[in-house]
Amino acid sequence: MIGVLGGGQLGRMLTLAAARLGFDVTILEPESDSPASRVAARTLEAPYDDIEALKTLAATCDVVTFEFENVPAAVVERLETLGALAAPGKRALAIAQDRVDEKTFFQGLGILTAHFVAVDGPEVIARSLKRDEPMLLKTRREGYDGKGQTWVEGPGDAEAAWTRIGRKPAILEARVPFVRELSVIAARSRTGEIACYPVGENRHENGVLRTTVAPARISDATRVEAEAIARKTLDALDYVGVIGVELFELADGSLRVNEFAPRVHNSGHWTLDGCEVDQFEQHVRAVAGWPLGKTEALAEVEMTNLLGFEADAWKALAAEPDARVWLYGKREARAGRKMGHVNRLRPLR
Amino acid sequence: MIGVLGGGQLGRMLTLAAARLGFDVTILEPESDSPASRVAARTLEAPYDDIEALKTLAATCDVVTFEFENVPAAVVERLETLGALAAPGKRALAIAQDRVDEKTFFQGLGILTAHFVAVDGPEVIARSLKRDEPMLLKTRREGYDGKGQTWVEGPGDAEAAWTRIGRKPAILEARVPFVRELSVIAARSRTGEIACYPVGENRHENGVLRTTVAPARISDATRVEAEAIARKTLDALDYVGVIGVELFELADGSLRVNEFAPRVHNSGHWTLDGCEVDQFEQHVRAVAGWPLGKTEALAEVEMTNLLGFEADAWKALAAEPDARVWLYGKREARAGRKMGHVNRLRPLR
Repeated sequence: MIGVLGGGQLGRMLTLAAARLGFDVTILEPESDSPASRVAARTLEAPYDDIEALKTLAATCDVVTFEFENVPAAVVERLETLGALAAPGKRALAIAQDRVDEKTFFQGLGILTAHFVAVDGPEVIARSLKRDEPMLLKTRREGYDGKGQTWVEGPGDAEAAWTRIGRKPAILEARVPFVRELSVIAARSRTGEIACYPVGENRHENGVLRTTVAPARISDATRVEAEAIARKTLDALDYVGVIGVELFELADGSLRVNEFAPRVHNSGHWTLDGCEVDQFEQHVRAVAGWPLGKTEALAEVEMTNLLGFEADAWKALAAEPDARVWLYGKREARAGRKMGHVNRLRPLR
Repeated sequence: MIGVLGGGQLGRMLTLAAARLGFDVTILEPESDSPASRVAARTLEAPYDDIEALKTLAATCDVVTFEFENVPAAVVERLETLGALAAPGKRALAIAQDRVDEKTFFQGLGILTAHFVAVDGPEVIARSLKRDEPMLLKTRREGYDGKGQTWVEGPGDAEAAWTRIGRKPAILEARVPFVRELSVIAARSRTGEIACYPVGENRHENGVLRTTVAPARISDATRVEAEAIARKTLDALDYVGVIGVELFELADGSLRVNEFAPRVHNSGHWTLDGCEVDQFEQHVRAVAGWPLGKTEALAEVEMTNLLGFEADAWKALAAEPDARVWLYGKREARAGRKMGHVNRLRPLR
């Protein structure tokens, strides 16, 4: 029995992968009728910090994992106190939850990031900004899909920008003059074995991932650097499971790391149809103590998120000969909501 | 919501395929804690003819399908009376449930079968047997995996053979001098569109499928004949869903049909990792009114059933680079019980 905190589409696809390997899954999720709960053997419908639910997870699950990174650190600690095996561990979660800690962690490993400053008020923002060099202000915690962030145009915008992000502890980042957004999905097993998927090239719209094309058309040197970043990160965190590392590629092919997600990642959905062992099965293998699977690409895949009512085109998508449709079973389509995705396969070049 | 009668591994894999496309599944299954129930949105734990359960299925499911062929015809009729859409329909089930009707059906389509005689007692058996030409005696109904059948060695064995199969209405079949056992997995959509997977070559042990290798190494003529048999069968039954047609190949490459299964089929498990759209998704697409998917083989696959304690080798199997392991989550391994299967992939030749 594998426990999963979170009942969204990532939890659903983790559950399907676990089921292929003969595992049962228990989902802990506060919302009723979640996408994952409808394929899980059992659902505990409770807040993530519900002590009775955590006791049940610890008592009945061989390992507990997460479909999102904003699980309170106290929850993971409580699970471990109760005797549960949690993967990835609390250190990876804690670092991923704080953008300043995260970038500091990367710098400590000698991995280049955007230039940044920790911010606790508008004064620091105003002081850090140079004329004609807008910087990106993000809350330290809990932003995702472009939420909780804003561009600061100049020193005069500092106070307003501070208000736009809710006057919370923040990070101010220099603009990275990137030519492409890349990501590397990688896994580390209980025994320290590491496997990287081919790098993906991502395109965002309004802060939300729109498409991933993999394998990305990058130089060998860039590929090697991307993998080295993933390996260093996984080892430094003594990580178990799948990680998603978001990267910026500069014009000279060098990389800056943006952030990591301590979980399966939207930009790894292409592996569902492009690889023998997809990122969800890989995560299950890692947390369950199985050997890792092959990560080679069998096809070039373009993954496109189906947002809002775009999923209504399922019939046309299903009729495309080399398109593989995934729908998440969400009850209500709202503008911008991730309802599914489609993987379009092409022969490898 | 898709209803599935039966909660075994076929129901489980159907449910996983349905979930990928965003469907919820309700399983009707008398046994508790079945493999399919642990991935289904809802399970009705009741006998297949439980009227309340059938009412619930009819009221809540957009379509009802089956993971096995021995659903009583009365159940399907009741479902249809209650307004449910059942696929494949009751005619396919009824014919598949009676070996004499099944072979008569094939003959009516001009499809060759073994020579056979309907049998209602030991006299017919004794009268039909020639010296030194053993024949196969099978109950007309409810045999599977080699159960309910016996070889009759000669006229003197008639009475004993009749007793061995339980003194039930039976069919007596001449031996087919086959060189290979083949099967064709095919699907027909609501609009009459048909798609055939490449033919598989099957090896049985003790009446149970052991391995399937696909695409089978057969001549073009044999392949064309196999597909024609599947197409004729599907059209004649006005079938909706996936069918498995078992064939014998003779030394000259010609075919005799053995039987059909009105459902997804063990010899089609290779498609799970050998094709973009596997037989389970194909069945879901067909019964749900979706367009059918591509059936091309992307690899040569050898599927091996994991029987009894063979599934305990999961760790070694998972470590094989081109092996894909499927485990069914059954609680108890018994000798000969299908616990999972492994698909070994090789490049196409």
